[in-house]
Amino acid sequence: MVPERAVILAAGLGTRMGRKPKGLVRVAGREILYRTIRLLQENGVKKFIVVTNERYAPLYQEFIERHGFDAEIIINPEPEKGNGHSLHLAKEKVSGKFALTMSDHVYSRDFIERAVRGRGLIADREPRWVDIGEATKVQVKDEKVWKIGKRLKEWDAIDTGFFVLDDEIFKVTEILENEKNGDYSLSEVMERAKVSVTFVDGLGWTDVDTPEEIKRARRMLVRTAVKGTGDGFVSRHLNRRISTRVSELLVEKVTPNQMTVVTFLLGIISALTTLVSLPLAGILYQLSSILDGIDGELARAQLRTSKLGGYVDSILDRYVDGSFLALLAYATINEPIWYFVALLALLGSVMVSYSTERFRGAFCRDAYKEVPALRKLPGKRDERVFLTMLFLLYQIAASIKALFLTLAVLTNFRVALTLYFVVKKVSHPKTI
Amino acid sequence: MVPERAVILAAGLGTRMGRKPKGLVRVAGREILYRTIRLLQENGVKKFIVVTNERYAPLYQEFIERHGFDAEIIINPEPEKGNGHSLHLAKEKVSGKFALTMSDHVYSRDFIERAVRGRGLIADREPRWVDIGEATKVQVKDEKVWKIGKRLKEWDAIDTGFFVLDDEIFKVTEILENEKNGDYSLSEVMERAKVSVTFVDGLGWTDVDTPEEIKRARRMLVRTAVKGTGDGFVSRHLNRRISTRVSELLVEKVTPNQMTVVTFLLGIISALTTLVSLPLAGILYQLSSILDGIDGELARAQLRTSKLGGYVDSILDRYVDGSFLALLAYATINEPIWYFVALLALLGSVMVSYSTERFRGAFCRDAYKEVPALRKLPGKRDERVFLTMLFLLYQIAASIKALFLTLAVLTNFRVALTLYFVVKKVSHPKTI
Repeated sequence: MVPERAVILAAGLGTRMGRKPKGLVRVAGREILYRTIRLLQENGVKKFIVVTNERYAPLYQEFIERHGFDAEIIINPEPEKGNGHSLHLAKEKVSGKFALTMSDHVYSRDFIERAVRGRGLIADREPRWVDIGEATKVQVKDEKVWKIGKRLKEWDAIDTGFFVLDDEIFKVTEILENEKNGDYSLSEVMERAKVSVTFVDGLGWTDVDTPEEIKRARRMLVRTAVKGTGDGFVSRHLNRRISTRVSELLVEKVTPNQMTVVTFLLGIISALTTLVSLPLAGILYQLSSILDGIDGELARAQLRTSKLGGYVDSILDRYVDGSFLALLAYATINEPIWYFVALLALLGSVMVSYSTERFRGAFCRDAYKEVPALRKLPGKRDERVFLTMLFLLYQIAASIKALFLTLAVLTNFRVALTLYFVVKKVSHPKTI
Repeated sequence: MVPERAVILAAGLGTRMGRKPKGLVRVAGREILYRTIRLLQENGVKKFIVVTNERYAPLYQEFIERHGFDAEIIINPEPEKGNGHSLHLAKEKVSGKFALTMSDHVYSRDFIERAVRGRGLIADREPRWVDIGEATKVQVKDEKVWKIGKRLKEWDAIDTGFFVLDDEIFKVTEILENEKNGDYSLSEVMERAKVSVTFVDGLGWTDVDTPEEIKRARRMLVRTAVKGTGDGFVSRHLNRRISTRVSELLVEKVTPNQMTVVTFLLGIISALTTLVSLPLAGILYQLSSILDGIDGELARAQLRTSKLGGYVDSILDRYVDGSFLALLAYATINEPIWYFVALLALLGSVMVSYSTERFRGAFCRDAYKEVPALRKLPGKRDERVFLTMLFLLYQIAASIKALFLTLAVLTNFRVALTLYFVVKKVSHPKTI
C-alpha cells in the first residue's frame, strides 16, 4: 500500500533564510528534513532520495550520516532551473509507487499518516496554516489535476507539496526535458500528467520561506501536538489554551524531561504551600496543572515522545496529587471523620488514573478509545485540580471539608462507573 | 515449526471410570479433551482427528460441535485390539508432521507448550504426577527409543503419551498391520520405528484411569496454575501453600468470578472490623490476602483466565487496601501528624501497584519480566498485609502508628526504587 521510497526535492537556492539549506532549518527543535524522513519512516517508507545542489550536498550528506538515515543524495547541477528537472534526475532511483515531497514543507504527524496513503497530488481544501496568496492553487476536474498555479483566480484546493506518484510520471518529465530544455516546474509536470488528486483537508502542514513562516510552522506543530484523549472540560477550555502558547515559547529551548521536572517541583511546592496560604496553594496547584500538559506537547512537537517519559510523568502526577491532598488535610482538618473522608478522596484520586491505566495494562489498548463512554465521565485530573483551587480561593473551614467530600464522592463514583462501562464493553468479546 | 494437525486416540474402552469416555471426563471443570485441544490450539495446532469407537462416536461428535472445534472423528470398529491400529486409521488424514496424543492424559499449559515443539516421543525423566508402577517406561539409545514397555526393569524416562511424528510412521504401522493382524500397541510402533526421544522433564502431566487419579490430575492442574511473578515472600511461603489446597477443593464447583467477589467482600468486612476488634480485623485481612490468590488459580486451572477478570480483581484489591487503611486510621488515630503519615501510607500502597501496572500500560510488557530487579524489592501486597496483621495482633497505640510509618516508608521507598530501576533499564533502548 504505502510507497517504499520517497524523493525529497532540496535543490532550491532560497535566499530569504540565510545561507542554510531550508531542509536543515530547525523548527521546534528538529530539522525540517528530519521531521519528514522520521514521519515517513514511521509510516513504512524505507529509502530516501534527496535531490540537492552542489553547494548543499555536503551539508545534507553530513545530516544523513549523523542520523543514520537510509538516504542517497543526487546532485542537480542546475538548481536555478525549474524544480521539475530535479524530479527528473531521480528517475533511475525509483520504480513503481513513490512519495515525492519538498524540503521546505513542514508536516504534522497526522498529515503524513493520511497523505502517504493517498494517490497523486495531495491537496487541501481547508488550509489552516498557509498564506493563500503565496500558495499554489489547484483546479480539479474528474478527480484529476486540471490547472495548477499560484495565480489561479478560481481553485478547488491548495497543493500541499506532497505527492504519491508512479514511475509513469517520468514519461512526462522526459517530454518536458526536450520541450523546455530542462527548465520546467513541478506544477507543469502535474498539469501535463493530469495526476490524480487526493484531498487531505484541514490537517497540519505549511511551507517555510521566511523567518516569520518558521514561527507559523512552530505554532502549527505545537497546536497539532495536543493529544486530547483524556483531557477534561477544564483542560479543553482553559489549560490547553495557555499551555500551547507557553509550549510555542519553549519548544526550541526546553526538553520534555526538563519540563516534567519543573512541573513536578511546582506541584510539590503547591502542596507545601497549603501549610502557609491556602489560596496561594490553590493557584499554584492549578498553575502546575496547566504546565502539566506542556511536557507532552513539547515531546510530540519535537518528535521526542517516549513511553518512559509518559510513565515517569504519570507517577509523578500521582505523587503531586497525593501530597497535595495529604498536606491539605494535615493543615486544615482536626476531626477523625473528616480525615477518613480525606483518605477516601486521596484513594479515589489515585484510583481514577489507576482504573484507566490498568485497562491499558490488561488490554494493551487505550481505555478512552475502546470505551468512549469514559470520555464523558467527570472527575479527570484537570477538573479536580480546578475544583480544588475554587474551594481554596473561598476557604472557610466548612468548604475544605466540602472539598474533600466532593472529591471522595466524585472520584470513587467515577471509578465505579469506569468499572461498570469496562465490564459492559469487554463482556462482549467481539468488541475488543 | 509446530505441527498443524493432531491425532487424538480415544478408542479405548476403559471401564474403571463408568460408562463415560475418558476424554469427556471433567477435571477442574473441563473435559480432558477440551484441555488438550484448547492448549494445542493456543500453540498453533489447527485441525484435530479423534479416533474413537462406535459407541463413543456420537458423544465425541456432540462435544466437538458444542465447542465449535475443527475436529473430525474416525471410527475404529475394533477398539478391543491394540491402540497401534487406531493410529494407523488416521493415516489418510495427516501428512508431514503431526502431533499424537491420548484422550486419557491430562497436560498442563507448560507441558503442551514445550512438548509440541519437541520431536518423536516426548519423555519425562522426572515424572512428578504419575504412578511409576503403572507407567510406560522407555529405554533410550542414541536419542532414540530402544525399548518401551510397562515392565522394563531399567529405564531412562517415562512415556508421556505425547508424540510429534512424521507420516513416515505409517510405513511401520503398515508392516505391523500385516504381521500382527491389526492387533499391536502404540509402544510396539514406537519401538519398531525407533522414533526420536525429546525430554521434557518435571512439568505437569498425568494419565487418568481411576477416580483416584482424577483427584491427582486436579491437584496437578491447580499446583501448576500458580502464576508466581509478583508473589512476595509471604505468598511463596505461606499464602500459596494454603490457597492451592483450597483451590483443589473448589476447582470443580466455584468460578473465578465468584471467588473474586467473595474475596473482595471478606476484605471489606476485615476493614470494617477495625472498628470493632483490631486483632480480628488483622486476621480477616490476612485471610482475604490468602483467598486473593484463589481466583487466579481457579481461572488458570479451569482455562478460564480473562484480562477483564484480572482488571476487576486488581481494582477491587486496591479498594480493600484503601478501605482497610482508611478505617484503621479512623479507628485508632487522633493527631493530625499521624493522619498525615496514614495518608502517605495509603498513597504508597496504591502506588506500589500503580507503578508496576502503569509499566505494562506503557510498554505492553510485564514489569517483573523486563526489570527483574523489581522482583526482589520488599513491600508487595502479601508482605504488607501480613505485616499489618502482625502489628494488629500486638496492638498498643504506638504500634499502629509504627505500622503506618513503616508502610508509608516501605511503600513509597519501593515506588522510588521502581522508578529508578525502570528508568535505568529502559534508558538503554535496545533492551526493551
